[in-house]
Amino acid sequence: MNFASDNCGPAHPEILAALSDVNPGYAPSYGADKAMDEVRARIRALFEAPRAEVFLVATGTAANALVLATMVEPWQTVFCTPLAHIQTDECNAPEFYTGGAKLTLVGEGDKMTPQALTAAIAGWPKGDVHVPQPGALALTQVTERGRVYDLAELAALTAVARAHELGSYMDGARLANALAALGCTPAEMTWKAGVDAVSLGGTKNGCIGVEAVILFDPEPAWEFALRRKRAAHLFSKHRYLSAQMLAYLQDDLWLRSAHTANARAARLAEGLRSVPGAEFAAEPQANMIFVRLPRAVHRRLHEGGAVYGLYDGPLESGDADQPLLARLVCDWSVAEEEIDRFIALARG
Amino acid sequence: MNFASDNCGPAHPEILAALSDVNPGYAPSYGADKAMDEVRARIRALFEAPRAEVFLVATGTAANALVLATMVEPWQTVFCTPLAHIQTDECNAPEFYTGGAKLTLVGEGDKMTPQALTAAIAGWPKGDVHVPQPGALALTQVTERGRVYDLAELAALTAVARAHELGSYMDGARLANALAALGCTPAEMTWKAGVDAVSLGGTKNGCIGVEAVILFDPEPAWEFALRRKRAAHLFSKHRYLSAQMLAYLQDDLWLRSAHTANARAARLAEGLRSVPGAEFAAEPQANMIFVRLPRAVHRRLHEGGAVYGLYDGPLESGDADQPLLARLVCDWSVAEEEIDRFIALARG
Amino acid sequence: MNFASDNCGPAHPEILAALSDVNPGYAPSYGADKAMDEVRARIRALFEAPRAEVFLVATGTAANALVLATMVEPWQTVFCTPLAHIQTDECNAPEFYTGGAKLTLVGEGDKMTPQALTAAIAGWPKGDVHVPQPGALALTQVTERGRVYDLAELAALTAVARAHELGSYMDGARLANALAALGCTPAEMTWKAGVDAVSLGGTKNGCIGVEAVILFDPEPAWEFALRRKRAAHLFSKHRYLSAQMLAYLQDDLWLRSAHTANARAARLAEGLRSVPGAEFAAEPQANMIFVRLPRAVHRRLHEGGAVYGLYDGPLESGDADQPLLARLVCDWSVAEEEIDRFIALARG
Amino acid sequence: MNFASDNCGPAHPEILAALSDVNPGYAPSYGADKAMDEVRARIRALFEAPRAEVFLVATGTAANALVLATMVEPWQTVFCTPLAHIQTDECNAPEFYTGGAKLTLVGEGDKMTPQALTAAIAGWPKGDVHVPQPGALALTQVTERGRVYDLAELAALTAVARAHELGSYMDGARLANALAALGCTPAEMTWKAGVDAVSLGGTKNGCIGVEAVILFDPEPAWEFALRRKRAAHLFSKHRYLSAQMLAYLQDDLWLRSAHTANARAARLAEGLRSVPGAEFAAEPQANMIFVRLPRAVHRRLHEGGAVYGLYDGPLESGDADQPLLARLVCDWSVAEEEIDRFIALARG
Repeated sequence: MNFASDNCGPAHPEILAALSDVNPGYAPSYGADKAMDEVRARIRALFEAPRAEVFLVATGTAANALVLATMVEPWQTVFCTPLAHIQTDECNAPEFYTGGAKLTLVGEGDKMTPQALTAAIAGWPKGDVHVPQPGALALTQVTERGRVYDLAELAALTAVARAHELGSYMDGARLANALAALGCTPAEMTWKAGVDAVSLGGTKNGCIGVEAVILFDPEPAWEFALRRKRAAHLFSKHRYLSAQMLAYLQDDLWLRSAHTANARAARLAEGLRSVPGAEFAAEPQANMIFVRLPRAVHRRLHEGGAVYGLYDGPLESGDADQPLLARLVCDWSVAEEEIDRFIALARG
Repeated sequence: MNFASDNCGPAHPEILAALSDVNPGYAPSYGADKAMDEVRARIRALFEAPRAEVFLVATGTAANALVLATMVEPWQTVFCTPLAHIQTDECNAPEFYTGGAKLTLVGEGDKMTPQALTAAIAGWPKGDVHVPQPGALALTQVTERGRVYDLAELAALTAVARAHELGSYMDGARLANALAALGCTPAEMTWKAGVDAVSLGGTKNGCIGVEAVILFDPEPAWEFALRRKRAAHLFSKHRYLSAQMLAYLQDDLWLRSAHTANARAARLAEGLRSVPGAEFAAEPQANMIFVRLPRAVHRRLHEGGAVYGLYDGPLESGDADQPLLARLVCDWSVAEEEIDRFIALARG
Repeated sequence: MNFASDNCGPAHPEILAALSDVNPGYAPSYGADKAMDEVRARIRALFEAPRAEVFLVATGTAANALVLATMVEPWQTVFCTPLAHIQTDECNAPEFYTGGAKLTLVGEGDKMTPQALTAAIAGWPKGDVHVPQPGALALTQVTERGRVYDLAELAALTAVARAHELGSYMDGARLANALAALGCTPAEMTWKAGVDAVSLGGTKNGCIGVEAVILFDPEPAWEFALRRKRAAHLFSKHRYLSAQMLAYLQDDLWLRSAHTANARAARLAEGLRSVPGAEFAAEPQANMIFVRLPRAVHRRLHEGGAVYGLYDGPLESGDADQPLLARLVCDWSVAEEEIDRFIALARG
Repeated sequence: MNFASDNCGPAHPEILAALSDVNPGYAPSYGADKAMDEVRARIRALFEAPRAEVFLVATGTAANALVLATMVEPWQTVFCTPLAHIQTDECNAPEFYTGGAKLTLVGEGDKMTPQALTAAIAGWPKGDVHVPQPGALALTQVTERGRVYDLAELAALTAVARAHELGSYMDGARLANALAALGCTPAEMTWKAGVDAVSLGGTKNGCIGVEAVILFDPEPAWEFALRRKRAAHLFSKHRYLSAQMLAYLQDDLWLRSAHTANARAARLAEGLRSVPGAEFAAEPQANMIFVRLPRAVHRRLHEGGAVYGLYDGPLESGDADQPLLARLVCDWSVAEEEIDRFIALARG
């Protein structure tokens, strides 16, 4: 019963098999491998973006920080939510990679509204040399609270950005889960919705460690390549990144895995509705659930061996009825039996 | 006949098998996996350094840049050779990670002498606020020209460094090859020779992508951990790094592979001695050979399908007798038949 | 009728005279001038801090950014208010100088409360490598809205910081005005109140361009010296900075000028109370007033030639009764007649 | 008898007078002062560059580092000599400001030749992502050894740079002394010779602390303005920088002072020719002399109270006949009697 994170689960067998398949013999290093040519072609086709430039890195933070550094100047600021991964979980990687750009926090939670973005940027003293200048918009899809921007929301947000001459970046660590939730095409959720660059996460969805960066505007590709190398994120034995990404996209493995993970989370959410005292912090849309449960329920779950994120505390002492916030993440591999066992435990 | 680089060869089957073995089920992320505990214990034992701190990253440049950033301040300088990988091949990663420290080039080639280091540092105006201050010594073992510092050379160099209050870092992208060449213990070639921090390369010697950073002084471990995360080099699914390194150290795979690679290079070197006009730029000691061959020989080799680094050029036009410098690298997987075929072609 | 800023006013004649006095003959450069020895001794005596280290720079932003860079690591964050000068008016200088540290905004306005600081820092996941780590507390005294922390407030804030192992920095661009307002000693308002480092502004209070940085803990002095040089803020002809600061402290010029400026602002505030519709955004305490005045009043003032900061707009169109926020700053040189003329105009 | 540096001498009375003249009343801050408009117009006229953008900063290192940061990317390298001020005397300011660019040292001494630059850059693996990319050429005029590039040398050097798509920067901390030595126009020595950006030093030539940065290509002006502010080098009371520069250019004060300084140095050099054992390290061309004198001569000079830079040592012990290198700098204010006294002492 492990719902700690989708980065705690195993790699998909097809991913592991791809490593073995690509292994024999010699291959050019540093991204000149043939598998990378296939990755590029596949992603361009999938995203209906024949001019897009594609790069692979091994961590989501690398993808985020490298793209933002390419999009903003050190004297600019990135607009994101207070719960954005780049703000809360990357130990100042965006500030490091950009050379000291700022993050400006918009709104209150995990999901930005066009109104909040407009309010933040409308009166900005652009052209005032004292003031950090607007640089880019950064959205996370699926959000850090498990919610999904619909296409209209995305279009409205990127329209505000564009009206202020800002590019838009989408942190897609869980991009596949968002696509599975919306049922739209990759193009519709990205460049057709006004997104200029996106990361396509593989790590959390069954890969070992690979994320694709897609620049719909190919112009800064050489700069990105230099930034990636300078940041030590260009792999010499690059074929093992390429092979993961190829297998991930092969036969829709990425979407299949995301659908599975989302369905498991839906089953889990459905079960939670029957747990007395359970209250969702946000309506679950993808593979991540934020739910408040009475402390007594948490105690039962922990005693039963369930593993997941618990935000308030402590578990041991305090009112048994007090609700404590939990984060429950389903990866592609979680068994339905585990979910059912979790729910049974929670119900008591 | 591929001698382009030891990062062009395949991963060792035992490494791939380790990924499959570690795969099932859930594991804590970000380095809290049990396999990492084993890696730490194994490396401490192998290096006879029970207090050492150990970290894994996926690229050699990350290891180099992160350690240097931990050892030097932005207003300092790192002493290295003009051919050091950190100087020539990392696109300013050391400068980026250190926040703008300088590299001071000592001597002429790939191997530093204590005399050259003393000459560079002896008259340094330490304490003069205008002048970049001495920060650290960085050596590469095996050097970028395939040579190996012996223990006395290492001790003499680190003694000069210590006399000037500098720490010593060893870029060990090919550490196993150096150990195989010297036949000494890991401790003898590192901390017993005055080295404060070392990288233990796995990638070039049969891994997919993993390097261990070993800090013999554990004091800056927390700083290193933060720097690694901030640089986006902390892997979420860390178990796959741990598993590679564990398998690499298991049953001396690292040393076996290095011995094989070195032996193959020795066979290649031996063969080259019989090629008319062949002249070694440096006496081969590990798995990398720098040799000058007449242009006519290179033409034959290229026509025959040999792949390797050619430094002077062009190949197509010019005097057939003119010697052109080649780099030939043997990895653990290269077959003796390929070497013999190469030599036969070279002989003409 | 210029109330735009205290950096728009003239230098005090005693400051100019000091430049002429120090000018003849040769003097050691880069801070080795004798006048700097006197500055150091004078500041140590005035602040009752015999071990303090003292440095001069020419701009307030340099003072802020250099001290913060000395106090925090690149993976840390500085706690300040949303209106802090370092957040709003320095074009990411703190992020640049610190190598990418973050600013965490505490509370809503210009003045931080211990409660708000505690709320911000209490649950901080210290020791979590993903999360930017707490670095320092930064307060501005006089605040950016013209208010003054009293000694109890300062002590309470720095106590919270210390309880979380944070150092406290005071941006004292208007330190003299705060001292004049509180009537306490420099020691009481700084290190006795728990402040670890402070800038003592001269520029806004009658100097040409000089700020003293005072490190009550002398330990990082050499680091500060290197950071200052590396940032190009070490003056070769340093005697002209020293001479300004010496004259500024001579015969209490700094406090006399601050008393004058504060008194002028009090006269202005007193007059404003008689202007129909005037409403203070904050109770004036030093030499800076934030007041809302009906648009019609602003129009009269502008037509009459008054110069000052107007935050809401536009002036030309809109409801004549609508209140618009103004910033009015009195420097040491402003004549009482100008103030009275301004008030007369405002009254209509 | 002070020949330590031209930054040890006094400010010219006309500069001090300008501060008093500009002092009365209120003036817009941060470079919006009217005096700056005049500075801009004056420099454009003097340099025959109507489109040039002009900025003032207070230190030469700030000018150098800001321009280089504007001209090069963090993954690039600046070509300069091993004795360049940016390499030896700025405590890594260029690396800091550029975000980690490298300096590549060309040739051996203070003066670069087109041949050496060509040799350094000709085989550069441009477009290889591993290798720091060529960024800019930086020359110092007058050089750090007191020599002057003639117009043909400058044109040849910048032509090499341009052929490799590099911009050329001239560190003109002693630009006026070079102009005085060459007798050419400012335009001829800068943009007509292929220079893209130049600093016009005032500090060493009779100002208190001001350098003009001139960008002949106005395109990056806004970026420069933001970089200056972000680096805390934008002065609030900017009028005092403007006034210095205006007075400096008024009635050719800059050239008059440079002519005087050069003439004094020539008198000093002439005298030195009569000192037994004196040997010039470089033929003096401007206001700075590098000369080897027997240790006995240095002892006499020091006992007589002469102050200057002594590079080899020690003075007290050792062979009386051994030549030790001295640096002697004449500023605009040095009296001929002092020079004659120095020579008399040296002669013994």
